[in-house]
Amino acid sequence: MSIKVADYLFTRLRQLGIQTVFGVPGDYNLRLLDFVEPSGLQWVGTCNELNGAYAADGYARINGLSALITTFGVGELSAINGIAGAYAEKAPVIHIVGTPERALQDNRTLVHHTLADGGDYGRFGAMASHVTVARADLRDPSLVPDQIDSVLRQALVHSRPVYLQVPDDVVDALVDTSNLATPITIPQTPAPANQPTVLDRVTERMYAAKRPLILVDGDIRPMGIVKEVDELIRLTNWPTWTNPFGKGLVNESLDNVYGIYHASFGDAAWKDYFTSADLAIVLGPHYTTTNSLAFTTLPSQDVSILLSPSTVQIGKDTYRDISRDFLRQLISRLDAPQIPKTTGPPKLPITTIDSLPPSDPITQEHFWNVVNPLVQPNDLVLAETGTSAHGTRHFTLPPNTPYFTAVTWLSIGYMLPATLGATIAHKQLNKTSKPSRGILFVGDGSLQMSVQELSTMIREKLNLVIIVVNNDGYTIERAIHGRKQRYNDIAPWRHALAMSFFGAEEEHARENYLVARTWGELEKVLVDKRITEGDGIRVVEVYMEKEDVQGILLSLLNKQIAAEQ
Amino acid sequence: MSIKVADYLFTRLRQLGIQTVFGVPGDYNLRLLDFVEPSGLQWVGTCNELNGAYAADGYARINGLSALITTFGVGELSAINGIAGAYAEKAPVIHIVGTPERALQDNRTLVHHTLADGGDYGRFGAMASHVTVARADLRDPSLVPDQIDSVLRQALVHSRPVYLQVPDDVVDALVDTSNLATPITIPQTPAPANQPTVLDRVTERMYAAKRPLILVDGDIRPMGIVKEVDELIRLTNWPTWTNPFGKGLVNESLDNVYGIYHASFGDAAWKDYFTSADLAIVLGPHYTTTNSLAFTTLPSQDVSILLSPSTVQIGKDTYRDISRDFLRQLISRLDAPQIPKTTGPPKLPITTIDSLPPSDPITQEHFWNVVNPLVQPNDLVLAETGTSAHGTRHFTLPPNTPYFTAVTWLSIGYMLPATLGATIAHKQLNKTSKPSRGILFVGDGSLQMSVQELSTMIREKLNLVIIVVNNDGYTIERAIHGRKQRYNDIAPWRHALAMSFFGAEEEHARENYLVARTWGELEKVLVDKRITEGDGIRVVEVYMEKEDVQGILLSLLNKQIAAEQ
Repeated sequence: MSIKVADYLFTRLRQLGIQTVFGVPGDYNLRLLDFVEPSGLQWVGTCNELNGAYAADGYARINGLSALITTFGVGELSAINGIAGAYAEKAPVIHIVGTPERALQDNRTLVHHTLADGGDYGRFGAMASHVTVARADLRDPSLVPDQIDSVLRQALVHSRPVYLQVPDDVVDALVDTSNLATPITIPQTPAPANQPTVLDRVTERMYAAKRPLILVDGDIRPMGIVKEVDELIRLTNWPTWTNPFGKGLVNESLDNVYGIYHASFGDAAWKDYFTSADLAIVLGPHYTTTNSLAFTTLPSQDVSILLSPSTVQIGKDTYRDISRDFLRQLISRLDAPQIPKTTGPPKLPITTIDSLPPSDPITQEHFWNVVNPLVQPNDLVLAETGTSAHGTRHFTLPPNTPYFTAVTWLSIGYMLPATLGATIAHKQLNKTSKPSRGILFVGDGSLQMSVQELSTMIREKLNLVIIVVNNDGYTIERAIHGRKQRYNDIAPWRHALAMSFFGAEEEHARENYLVARTWGELEKVLVDKRITEGDGIRVVEVYMEKEDVQGILLSLLNKQIAAEQ
Repeated sequence: MSIKVADYLFTRLRQLGIQTVFGVPGDYNLRLLDFVEPSGLQWVGTCNELNGAYAADGYARINGLSALITTFGVGELSAINGIAGAYAEKAPVIHIVGTPERALQDNRTLVHHTLADGGDYGRFGAMASHVTVARADLRDPSLVPDQIDSVLRQALVHSRPVYLQVPDDVVDALVDTSNLATPITIPQTPAPANQPTVLDRVTERMYAAKRPLILVDGDIRPMGIVKEVDELIRLTNWPTWTNPFGKGLVNESLDNVYGIYHASFGDAAWKDYFTSADLAIVLGPHYTTTNSLAFTTLPSQDVSILLSPSTVQIGKDTYRDISRDFLRQLISRLDAPQIPKTTGPPKLPITTIDSLPPSDPITQEHFWNVVNPLVQPNDLVLAETGTSAHGTRHFTLPPNTPYFTAVTWLSIGYMLPATLGATIAHKQLNKTSKPSRGILFVGDGSLQMSVQELSTMIREKLNLVIIVVNNDGYTIERAIHGRKQRYNDIAPWRHALAMSFFGAEEEHARENYLVARTWGELEKVLVDKRITEGDGIRVVEVYMEKEDVQGILLSLLNKQIAAEQ
């Protein structure tokens, strides 16, 4: 039994739950693209490859896996920053690159999309090796099925991008089908001999705790333990916080879930509980400066038990090759009556819009509390790097509300295209009767990086509210350095025209642009039927002052102002 | 005498004739950016880093050298495809990357913009090594002046990109100023002992030729011999053609200059002369498939004398380490009376607009001839990859009219931002009393890749006519493969709104959008005062059929149609 290489590859993608492929056509991938839609996959062409990579990243974070197709050289290098971000933040994107036919490569022919310096066809793969966990160049049909399977399996295990090169003349080469009968799964390894000891140590520490807490971080998504984490939170009823990377992965409507722990957000009671805890169960830690306020919002190692991919760390002791179902085993083993009860601090007060003077300008200080009720159960919420990501950390999310921001790669321009991908995945996975809806918060500076993908959102008829925070440039950079410098300015755009320029139906575009400069105007927007019940793309432009920041950004800004005195 | 590292670097850039620096602010380059404008350099922030790299490439092709500043990781990787293109087509871009301070690097701290996988700070430099000819990480102030000088010298010699990493805490470190007294120049090496022999061989072959020709290619720009080539063309009066990469570097108003030699453009008389030539002096060869119709439009090796950087090839014999002034020496040595006279073929007929039915739709076949008179002496002409680059190959350019297209890297989306950079350089170098003007031809598909840079053009008040060829998608890809495939479609945009959306003054935006669907409408546009005498950005939307192609693209399309029968 035989099958063409492209059909083999796309069958594997479908088996793994991918329904949509992103990318851009190019001279060396056109034959490959011929196979996409006949295989049952949806093709979503993006305006450029970087945006395509961002979209694939967003799709992967919601769907668990995604695919991007670009062309040799120009296409793949345009995408590589997006692949790097997917690597840093563990979004498994399968990057498939159409390459010149083998004869051209073997002859070192100076074709277009090479560097015109000797016919070296290996450079782009070498560059990709820094930002992918596995690679294969599909040159020999006899090896292709195993190559594809091996690479895809590594994407699943590491939850990071992989890279496949498909020469133009291999696309329709025949390969054996037999592998296809066996689905690609994450290999289950036997638990190491010491695993019961590790489980014992953890349960003993849990039973003995007086002031325990749970800290959820973003690696629980790639570890595939989101459900188990929810069970642990409910079972223990312990005070639970998240890092920014973990937000959106826990049910914040539970009484014991507090949202993001972050000194400058919390009050004295939070800080007191957190810093005096005698046990912190840390699930899926992703300890980078930006995910932990420069490591200041993490529990101390002495009291921490960290559950990472295949690793458990108890204080200073590290146990490796722990089985993937460790948390499931822990939960089964826990004896509920022995779990200590504790009382967490009170939750933070919330500002409501009716407490704010209607004619006052909108400020960062209260905006995020006030706009929070816009988010309804089953919405998908996304926030771009900058004041939007910082601001939405204050949200309390309803149940079943996926949310993510960038936390470490922080490439601005990422979130609009990531929203394209995430919204498509969210819609495909929607099991409720309610139409799925995305809500994106994005600043005017970031928007300029990747704005054209709005046209793809329009073409794909997404159901999406886009809140553009217009604060006249790169406010987050102004807070960090150069608050008055011209390099943090951007050209002013007329956002009211965005949808119409990018091809939306004229009447829809006109009717679905809203603007708010004051609390009163914002209040009207929040109850406007176009927002609460409308569909298609809605754009809400919210004006704020260009030096209006909060939290860590405000302290950085104040440091600058003090230095100027 | 001491100077801060940033001041040293920017002083060197100014000494080398750079007046403008492109880039995007980011957390690790803000301190560096503080020094840009005080040093006397102009800062032009672009909407994203890839566009910034393209702009720097365009500036370098006109100015001879350019600089781009990005931030560690996210910024530099976004730009890397543009750097690769500059490498392939020899645009010397100095890519300056602001990196985290040395302490963070040395401690392998997991800061943002790293890959969160162990604090490896070397990955991005390793990636850059594939697309740059020299690199330095400015970690030690005692070495910095020599490092900078060495790297910049290599950019000049190779005319390819280089890469400088500036840690955030080195920006204002003090270094010795003494190097600055000596300008950085291209080192003059002594001519090799055999150079006189090589000169003799070339002159003998020239004196003996019966049917000689000159073929000019694009490497004469990086070789710095554009002026000498012009002299040789005038001195010999021999029939002269160019490859696409050489167009714009020769004076096409001379009687003996024919434009691009290309079988499908030329008629029998051109082909007959070209293929029966007994001597072809090839200046600055760049022999890639796309620059030579898959090597079919090149003279045979037997009759060729190739003058490349530091190399002369006569037939099968290659002479290396030839001095940079070889062509100058050759010209001095040539004895005019001994240079054979020859008669070239007639030039090609030109279609004029009055010969076309005014109500007929505009077609690729005649459009380029008809629009050619729009180009005036001292204009800068640019054409994006696709039908625009192919079409403008038919142009006859007036004297002193710089022109370029991509010829090998061919990354679509390149040309609009490259035009931003090129137009700024062209204006800075303008020595005429006429305001400099750019004319860009760009397709609707390419435009979507990098459209936001239009806002930078507006902000920078460029004088520019942008002809948008609207043929409903990726027509060049349709010609190559998949002419009816949905993946070659794009979302339809309302180009009439582009300027207004991107922040142009309302009245200007409204008044300076023109549209043509027929020859009659086009004729009106070509004489419209807004185009011939206006200023600022003008957008002309020209509609053509989506499968309307010419030349090699038409034969590819016809091959597809035949295969479908």
